[in-house]
Amino acid sequence: MVATPALDALETRFRQIAALESAAGILHWDAATMLPPGSAEARGEQLAALAEISHEKLTDPQLAEWFADAQTEQPDAPWRRANLREMQHRYAHATAMPQALVAALTKLRLRSEHQWRNARAASDYAGFLPIFREIISLTRELAAAKSAALSLSPYDALLDSYDPGLRNATIAPLFADLKSWLPEFVGTAIAHQQRQPILPLTATVPIAQQEALGRQMMQALGFDSRQGRIDVSAHPFCGGAPGDVRITTRYREDRFTDALYGVLHETGHALYEQGLPAEWRGLPIGEARGMSTHESQSLFIEMQLCRSPAFLAFLLPKLHAAFGLDGAAWTRENATRALTQVERGFIRVNADEVTYPLHVILRWELEQALLSGDLDAGDLPAAWNEKMQAYLGVTPPNMAEGCLQDIHWPEGMFGYFPTYTLGAMLAAQLMAAARTALPALDRQVEGGDFAPLVGWLRQQVHRHGSYYPTPELVVAATGQPLNPAIYRAHLEARYLG
Amino acid sequence: MVATPALDALETRFRQIAALESAAGILHWDAATMLPPGSAEARGEQLAALAEISHEKLTDPQLAEWFADAQTEQPDAPWRRANLREMQHRYAHATAMPQALVAALTKLRLRSEHQWRNARAASDYAGFLPIFREIISLTRELAAAKSAALSLSPYDALLDSYDPGLRNATIAPLFADLKSWLPEFVGTAIAHQQRQPILPLTATVPIAQQEALGRQMMQALGFDSRQGRIDVSAHPFCGGAPGDVRITTRYREDRFTDALYGVLHETGHALYEQGLPAEWRGLPIGEARGMSTHESQSLFIEMQLCRSPAFLAFLLPKLHAAFGLDGAAWTRENATRALTQVERGFIRVNADEVTYPLHVILRWELEQALLSGDLDAGDLPAAWNEKMQAYLGVTPPNMAEGCLQDIHWPEGMFGYFPTYTLGAMLAAQLMAAARTALPALDRQVEGGDFAPLVGWLRQQVHRHGSYYPTPELVVAATGQPLNPAIYRAHLEARYLG
Repeated sequence: MVATPALDALETRFRQIAALESAAGILHWDAATMLPPGSAEARGEQLAALAEISHEKLTDPQLAEWFADAQTEQPDAPWRRANLREMQHRYAHATAMPQALVAALTKLRLRSEHQWRNARAASDYAGFLPIFREIISLTRELAAAKSAALSLSPYDALLDSYDPGLRNATIAPLFADLKSWLPEFVGTAIAHQQRQPILPLTATVPIAQQEALGRQMMQALGFDSRQGRIDVSAHPFCGGAPGDVRITTRYREDRFTDALYGVLHETGHALYEQGLPAEWRGLPIGEARGMSTHESQSLFIEMQLCRSPAFLAFLLPKLHAAFGLDGAAWTRENATRALTQVERGFIRVNADEVTYPLHVILRWELEQALLSGDLDAGDLPAAWNEKMQAYLGVTPPNMAEGCLQDIHWPEGMFGYFPTYTLGAMLAAQLMAAARTALPALDRQVEGGDFAPLVGWLRQQVHRHGSYYPTPELVVAATGQPLNPAIYRAHLEARYLG
Repeated sequence: MVATPALDALETRFRQIAALESAAGILHWDAATMLPPGSAEARGEQLAALAEISHEKLTDPQLAEWFADAQTEQPDAPWRRANLREMQHRYAHATAMPQALVAALTKLRLRSEHQWRNARAASDYAGFLPIFREIISLTRELAAAKSAALSLSPYDALLDSYDPGLRNATIAPLFADLKSWLPEFVGTAIAHQQRQPILPLTATVPIAQQEALGRQMMQALGFDSRQGRIDVSAHPFCGGAPGDVRITTRYREDRFTDALYGVLHETGHALYEQGLPAEWRGLPIGEARGMSTHESQSLFIEMQLCRSPAFLAFLLPKLHAAFGLDGAAWTRENATRALTQVERGFIRVNADEVTYPLHVILRWELEQALLSGDLDAGDLPAAWNEKMQAYLGVTPPNMAEGCLQDIHWPEGMFGYFPTYTLGAMLAAQLMAAARTALPALDRQVEGGDFAPLVGWLRQQVHRHGSYYPTPELVVAATGQPLNPAIYRAHLEARYLG
């Protein structure tokens, strides 16, 4: 065995950082589910201190020396070189940011998020504008600093922090393709659906029964309750820590399908986390690949699998047995159509899979313009509404349902939105590949046997962790790069078929 | 304002350490209440990493320089010098231990605790003996290292880590006093109680109702639910973090008084934590004073207050209203006697307040003998049983109910046991002082008005944090050092009156 002291030291350090991040993951989960109302300030201080210590450990000058020495070391296992690449990627991002800028942004984000909540409640863009200008200005500085350090364009440097290896040159042709046909497709799909009325899936289901159904579905899909749990929070998420994956949902008696599909979505994220290679746990290579791939897993389960007729053939008898749901609305055909109904809405998070990419493309275009200075922040509402009209054919009645709706920009998250749509495209592409690999898929799904499909996902995606950069993972998993024709084929089959 | 750069740097560092400890506190709570069964290993790794980072930060060579410089700084606020003393105390303890010894003990403790669980289940002392010898040997090394660094006797060095400033020279005369009359007192108290039969407090109470009662009592006593919560765990404790105090209990339908008095005990700990000075939060001076004082607070609430006739006059009507409890067992007189029944038992954690100190004195004598070498570990069972017979008049039927019953020694905790009895003595002394300060106390308690009493505790004990060393705090709070005559007077009044 060849000695690899520098690599060893780096791996030990990154395991420490991972432990701090795991602790923070549980504290975040606790804050959303368990925290006493008056303890938020104390929690904020704990999380800030953990983040500071992680940052210290990641930007420690000692690491530069270890990275230099590690280049010449020859580890036996090839994964250690891939892990080295991932460690360097993190180090490069962390050290690219001047400490004073990090501190200023952290403080500004807290104030900005607070002001945004008030501004959104009052639908008052003018009140938010001054601090939004500050956010844009500091984000520009951040992008410039990362751009210089990483030799990427400023926007690519931001993209790269959410999805390592993602470049705008990859996104642009994909989104141009979508934009060329999707706005018209929305109208066609709606017209197609209107040929036959959709009966709404209304029902009142006690929360305890919704909870039991959710757990039953999680278990059927392969969620491992020995290393995870589900609880209630105001905003559903998948969090926790490696080996201890915690998802949340929220319940309303009169909206059980919202809770159910929320659980299914988060279960998709959770299956990914639980399927990551345990032997790499604690190292960057053992983590999920990036935001696009993560979103592909939740959308694969929620959208590709669980809104399909095959899944509904499995689900509906269970709803009938558990909740007594019956009648014309609860046929497979109507339920499938109700769960895939296309609507021209204002709100991204409520959007269906046909209109969702247009919400994303709008934000992707606008955030680039805001950062480059082509669009002044004062002109955002007009630009927003104009694009909403052009892409979706509707104009928001107010700012709260328009450019103030998302928390991302107020939190300084620019370069994040594209990952939602890349994830949706990858989910469709994975399903197409899965269908080829698993000829009996529909029959298995109808029978509630999800093991072959989830096993395929584990094999093609989960087990790789961050071994491959995203583009290579897409090819390894599906046989080709992201291909907008596959997404289009999926939408055509589902919405015009 | 005088510049105090070294003190400032130290305070910043200790705030970071406190944040790490707070995070660990929540993770420990989570492990006992929420953790999925298969996630224990991941949690163990997280906690080990947090402990390692805390230790790194506390033993950082840079601190020696800051401590040296801080000696000559002149802070405006006197509390900062008291806090400096506390910071130095922690630093001295942490740096006294050779790193290799810390690592060896940490590993050994894990194995030892595991073997002890099996050995206790099988009542097999011989099976535990080999690793117990290792534990004793490393604890001796630890005590020797601390002894040299802190200029304390080896046993004092161990005591000092649980209760800063506690010396065996303080304990010895107190325990000699107790030992001179308590074994006989046990018999007298039992004979006194036998003059009239005690009706057992048996009742079956659904767990949800027990929970509601517990919350009602916590609230009555002043527990702040905005900054704390109660949950269920296998072993009750008070944990969490400053500003976020979490207590636990366990329920059995046929034993509601166990759960109730468990909640009351933990509420005593929690009131202390919640009463600590918020302005010092994150600094050593803002923490609870030590184990004796902490135990005094739980025993003050559970034993001094809540097993008193005045409290039962408040409680019994509530039990009647909520659970329909009625009849001869549920009179104030019988209930008080049932809740203070003296018994010669084998198990420390089940002991009443009369026999408890004898369990502690036995362990205090034996642990000194084990560490000094006067007693070989192989001879512990015989020595244990001999002392049980001499002090309590009973001989354990097996090892599980004898020298294998406690987790403390298997975990390497020597020097901890005395704090239970010092806490009990301090609780009695505090109650005596409170009676003098609050002439209407019984009437207030009977009426459910605990604010004057808890307010007095806050004033005399809680608000001081670790400003005073323990002996000074005892004097400040009660007007005199720990006085065994006061504990004796309490027992005589309650058990012979």
